[in-house]
Amino acid sequence: MEKSTLILASGSPRRKQLLTQIGLDFQVVPNSVNENHDLDLPPEAFAEHWGREKAKNVAIDYPDNLVIGADTIVVLDKNILGKPKDKKESFGMLKRLSGRTHEVITGVAIIWKNKEIDITFHSQTYVTFREIPEKYISFYIDNYSPLDKAGSYGIQDWFSVWVEKVDGCYFNVMGLPLSTFYQHYQALVNLHIHL
Amino acid sequence: MEKSTLILASGSPRRKQLLTQIGLDFQVVPNSVNENHDLDLPPEAFAEHWGREKAKNVAIDYPDNLVIGADTIVVLDKNILGKPKDKKESFGMLKRLSGRTHEVITGVAIIWKNKEIDITFHSQTYVTFREIPEKYISFYIDNYSPLDKAGSYGIQDWFSVWVEKVDGCYFNVMGLPLSTFYQHYQALVNLHIHL
Repeated sequence: MEKSTLILASGSPRRKQLLTQIGLDFQVVPNSVNENHDLDLPPEAFAEHWGREKAKNVAIDYPDNLVIGADTIVVLDKNILGKPKDKKESFGMLKRLSGRTHEVITGVAIIWKNKEIDITFHSQTYVTFREIPEKYISFYIDNYSPLDKAGSYGIQDWFSVWVEKVDGCYFNVMGLPLSTFYQHYQALVNLHIHL
Repeated sequence: MEKSTLILASGSPRRKQLLTQIGLDFQVVPNSVNENHDLDLPPEAFAEHWGREKAKNVAIDYPDNLVIGADTIVVLDKNILGKPKDKKESFGMLKRLSGRTHEVITGVAIIWKNKEIDITFHSQTYVTFREIPEKYISFYIDNYSPLDKAGSYGIQDWFSVWVEKVDGCYFNVMGLPLSTFYQHYQALVNLHIHL
């Protein structure tokens, strides 16, 4: 059996960075899924649904590759916070998250269509923010790029100064639960599939 | 009063990366402290002691700068694990840490000699590893650089696949507790010291 290339079905530079960090060879094929955030699902199922949709969307065109899809959401008071639409919504999200603990859930799907491999899982991390004075929220929105991030913050950029505590997988907050992902990946490798 | 440059009294590329991440201007002046790991102190005091020694060592030559020193240690079963001496010690450390939760403590000192600013604090994070098969420990030691790292691992490199969980400040494990550090730093800025 010939070697297959891993495909990351995501345009997120953070996910690309994470897969690179763990030494995997892969190519990026951004998905074209239109995310509808009005789906009535519990947060874990919601994140898994969209992670899977993204993987499926790319797997159709790449049935002989192992395709990874992922969706990251922020949950506060049972509300799902996705990516903010504009600076105003970004400010509102960060104001709500200030001084509190929220949940970050990433749903991940691994699909290899022609081998009938189809795995979906999620990982959950609690993140506690310090109280963030409004001037710093504005500074962040004006100087960084919160609009392409669930919950409107990047844990790996300047915003990290407000992150008091993480409980769970840190990389999950960046967009991919590395340790859980690697366990699934290794299990596939050990099944003698030549990845 | 004129503007002063922040000095990082550490040659660690991780600490440099972290200060850059939070947008601070600084210069690096590595300390020349000889660390003696036989000091009979509780872990927190031990880390603070060496963080302070490093800052003091550089502050002597830079009395008009705010100097940051830091020391990171790993604690397991009340034993302090510093940097491994060689590959054999590295293997032993990772084998001991496998499948268990250990503590990472970073002691930090901020010294501005001519302003009589002298602050020392520490931050504590719990890190849980999955069981790591020996072949992966050997792979890591042969392909990465564990010898310059306390506890013999870098949470931000390939080793991250074995990190099941972090409880506390993630950046503390990399070498500097960003959020706590920034609180102290901002308090100094707010005292109208022109940094």
